[in-house]
Amino acid sequence: MRLLSLLAATALLSAPLTAQVPAPNADPDAQMLRRIYDAALVDNPSYEHLRELTTRYPGRLAHTSAYQGAAAWTESLLKSLGCDRTELQPVMVPAWERGATESVEFTTSTGTRPLSAVALGGSVPTAAEGLSAHVVEVRSLEDLATADVRGKIVFFNGAMNPRSVNPGQAYGEAGRQRNQGPAAAAKRGAVGVVVRSLTHRLDDVPHTGATTYLPDVPRIPAAALSTLAADKLSAALKAEPSLRVTLRIHSRWLPDAPSANVIGEIRGSEFPEKVILVGGHLDSWDITPGAHDDGAGVIQSIDVLRILKAIGYTPKHTIRCVLFSNEENGLRGALKYAEVAGEKKEVHVLALESDGGGFSARGFNIGNAAGDAHLKAARFKPLFEPYGVHLFQAGRGGADVGPLMAKGNTVAGLIPEAQRYFDIHHTREDTIDKVNKRELELGSAAMAALVYLVDQHGL
Amino acid sequence: MRLLSLLAATALLSAPLTAQVPAPNADPDAQMLRRIYDAALVDNPSYEHLRELTTRYPGRLAHTSAYQGAAAWTESLLKSLGCDRTELQPVMVPAWERGATESVEFTTSTGTRPLSAVALGGSVPTAAEGLSAHVVEVRSLEDLATADVRGKIVFFNGAMNPRSVNPGQAYGEAGRQRNQGPAAAAKRGAVGVVVRSLTHRLDDVPHTGATTYLPDVPRIPAAALSTLAADKLSAALKAEPSLRVTLRIHSRWLPDAPSANVIGEIRGSEFPEKVILVGGHLDSWDITPGAHDDGAGVIQSIDVLRILKAIGYTPKHTIRCVLFSNEENGLRGALKYAEVAGEKKEVHVLALESDGGGFSARGFNIGNAAGDAHLKAARFKPLFEPYGVHLFQAGRGGADVGPLMAKGNTVAGLIPEAQRYFDIHHTREDTIDKVNKRELELGSAAMAALVYLVDQHGL
Repeated sequence: MRLLSLLAATALLSAPLTAQVPAPNADPDAQMLRRIYDAALVDNPSYEHLRELTTRYPGRLAHTSAYQGAAAWTESLLKSLGCDRTELQPVMVPAWERGATESVEFTTSTGTRPLSAVALGGSVPTAAEGLSAHVVEVRSLEDLATADVRGKIVFFNGAMNPRSVNPGQAYGEAGRQRNQGPAAAAKRGAVGVVVRSLTHRLDDVPHTGATTYLPDVPRIPAAALSTLAADKLSAALKAEPSLRVTLRIHSRWLPDAPSANVIGEIRGSEFPEKVILVGGHLDSWDITPGAHDDGAGVIQSIDVLRILKAIGYTPKHTIRCVLFSNEENGLRGALKYAEVAGEKKEVHVLALESDGGGFSARGFNIGNAAGDAHLKAARFKPLFEPYGVHLFQAGRGGADVGPLMAKGNTVAGLIPEAQRYFDIHHTREDTIDKVNKRELELGSAAMAALVYLVDQHGL
Repeated sequence: MRLLSLLAATALLSAPLTAQVPAPNADPDAQMLRRIYDAALVDNPSYEHLRELTTRYPGRLAHTSAYQGAAAWTESLLKSLGCDRTELQPVMVPAWERGATESVEFTTSTGTRPLSAVALGGSVPTAAEGLSAHVVEVRSLEDLATADVRGKIVFFNGAMNPRSVNPGQAYGEAGRQRNQGPAAAAKRGAVGVVVRSLTHRLDDVPHTGATTYLPDVPRIPAAALSTLAADKLSAALKAEPSLRVTLRIHSRWLPDAPSANVIGEIRGSEFPEKVILVGGHLDSWDITPGAHDDGAGVIQSIDVLRILKAIGYTPKHTIRCVLFSNEENGLRGALKYAEVAGEKKEVHVLALESDGGGFSARGFNIGNAAGDAHLKAARFKPLFEPYGVHLFQAGRGGADVGPLMAKGNTVAGLIPEAQRYFDIHHTREDTIDKVNKRELELGSAAMAALVYLVDQHGL
């Protein structure tokens, strides 16, 4: 039995090695990273902050009072950390409301059955009595091009490609059906759309998300079906191709409404006019608490400032936390921020975003106009390896720093472990219990470490 | 709004890149890895196998009928895959039973309150009426050395070190209290032990695990408290140091009992006498379905054979799946397997174990007598990088391949993402819903890929 304990211990030690206290004569950057990780992993209040954000302010689309509450609360949190300046940066945002709960059902010769569904974000409503039509099932936008869909409801049933190791890539590919499908179907004379939810999971939880209408093309109602509902409808169509689907959507578009980006910063001691930005988006879809998307990125960005304060670090550059409004259905917050930064001729040394979920940090995607920023950043890799952070690859940061990249700034995005994100993305299931406290903290630490290294050594 | 869709897509594509179909003239190994990953990620039944294993055979300590059932079921699964040979390799194992549900409570001047607790695996029972004593709280084995614990219950309340990025390391360090604490306390005259559960989580779920008694030292009863219960007891002790704790444990030790390792193999076409082993342990603690520990490793090891069959691969070496008995409380299965292999003078080119949970695969630890096996294996790294597998580090494989390494064989262990494993390790919460289907499959694929590469190119 003693053998067991010895062998068990060696087994455990065979997992990734842990950085321990660097020797006193260790590289100063290595010492600083250890202090950053300690401040992130020991007595960190941020997980409880995420609980508060997601339970007090769920469904915080940018034009809502939930968003206003979240903005006021996060600004006060930034103030309490000792920021030199905080601001609610005004921005007008689109205002779409779901209204009463939508419904989708199908009727065969044997009866009518409900399907688990949610309206897509931005969908126009049906008539009050609903929209009822025959159905054409397709698996892609390409399929649609050869289908006769006049007067029909188009059922986009393409699944995310399971062969993609990266679920984000599979999402991007299958997601064209949701984003472009309703407009493409309308162009060909369809009257409505239902689309398979974007997830690898087989369950009864529908996923919402934006759809994009086109000018001069009729706007037709569109809803997402859960993956199980999509399979059910597909099987029913095989048995009875003439079945009818009925959509009832009660949404409405309101005039643009006021919202705000939330900003808090620690002023730089040497280059106050040069900014290192950390951020995420504060808005979420209306049906979700938005814990991973993007409560995690919001709380991590705030925590970067807390960590730097906690270790007593005085940055050379201004470290600015920006919580963007309206990523989900307009990107107006990001566009406004980049516009104002351009007017002020602010230089962003780096704009680092977290919007891939609060899972274990695996690295960063990094982009600039010259396309070499990720290669420059890779010199930091040995400092990150003890912490399991190893990816330094070319990329475009993320949606909210996109407008900054378009203006010539260097951007980055945290890359978390990706497999579980789309299980709950844009659903009522994106809740605090899906976020692991230490995984959240490891993301904050990786972001703070990159901010520190860029502040010291540039990029 | 169209801008949004474009920007959103670029954000999604910035996550780790996915390997797609290699070009027809691509490296044959790259092509084979793509086929392996496809066979793992598309229409893979293994997650449902894991559901069946954990729901039909929970609490499968090696001497139990649950274990017998799991052994028969996994052997039939191996047969159904078309193995050239299967075997139930007999081994005698220790037999310990928990008996009726244990209880731990503490009594102060104001009353008696229960504490969420489980007996440690192997603990001797208390008297039927329980064991009641004053309590001395310590934080480590080192603390114990200076404490007067005669006639007392020792409360080991050392927490896992949050600073360790690798929870396995923190587990190994704090775990000494559980494994060696009761014997050490008994040596100093203590009458019982309660120990803080080994997890970073603060919750009310106690974690069991083995404790190791010593010859010529009294065997005293020992239980693990949930982390919340440990905090509660610690606070109560501060308020009233003279409180008493009462343990009631109803366990018993039975004579050694018959069990078996489950073996299935595909015979090698060129070197049938040389073996590449994949394995995990089939037993679990009595209180848990053992989904991550180690149902995942069992199912992944079986799936390696299924994948190789599915892609029509004819291995040069014998590929053998071994499901070890009794890892949790004796390691007898691993010792028996290595003993028989030694008698038969079998050569193991590689013995690869999965016993770190069914989370996303991040790499391998690899060990041999010369200490250079991980460096040799690292030449495969570029082939794995498209799949997010990047660690090739020195290690000792794991508990069950330890006896093979001691005999001079090369061993390896899958390294999965580690943060969530100890949240549910050795608890009733280690259930199928904690395992993500694709994460499980990515582990199987990584293992099959390493097996293929070693079969082709050696190590």
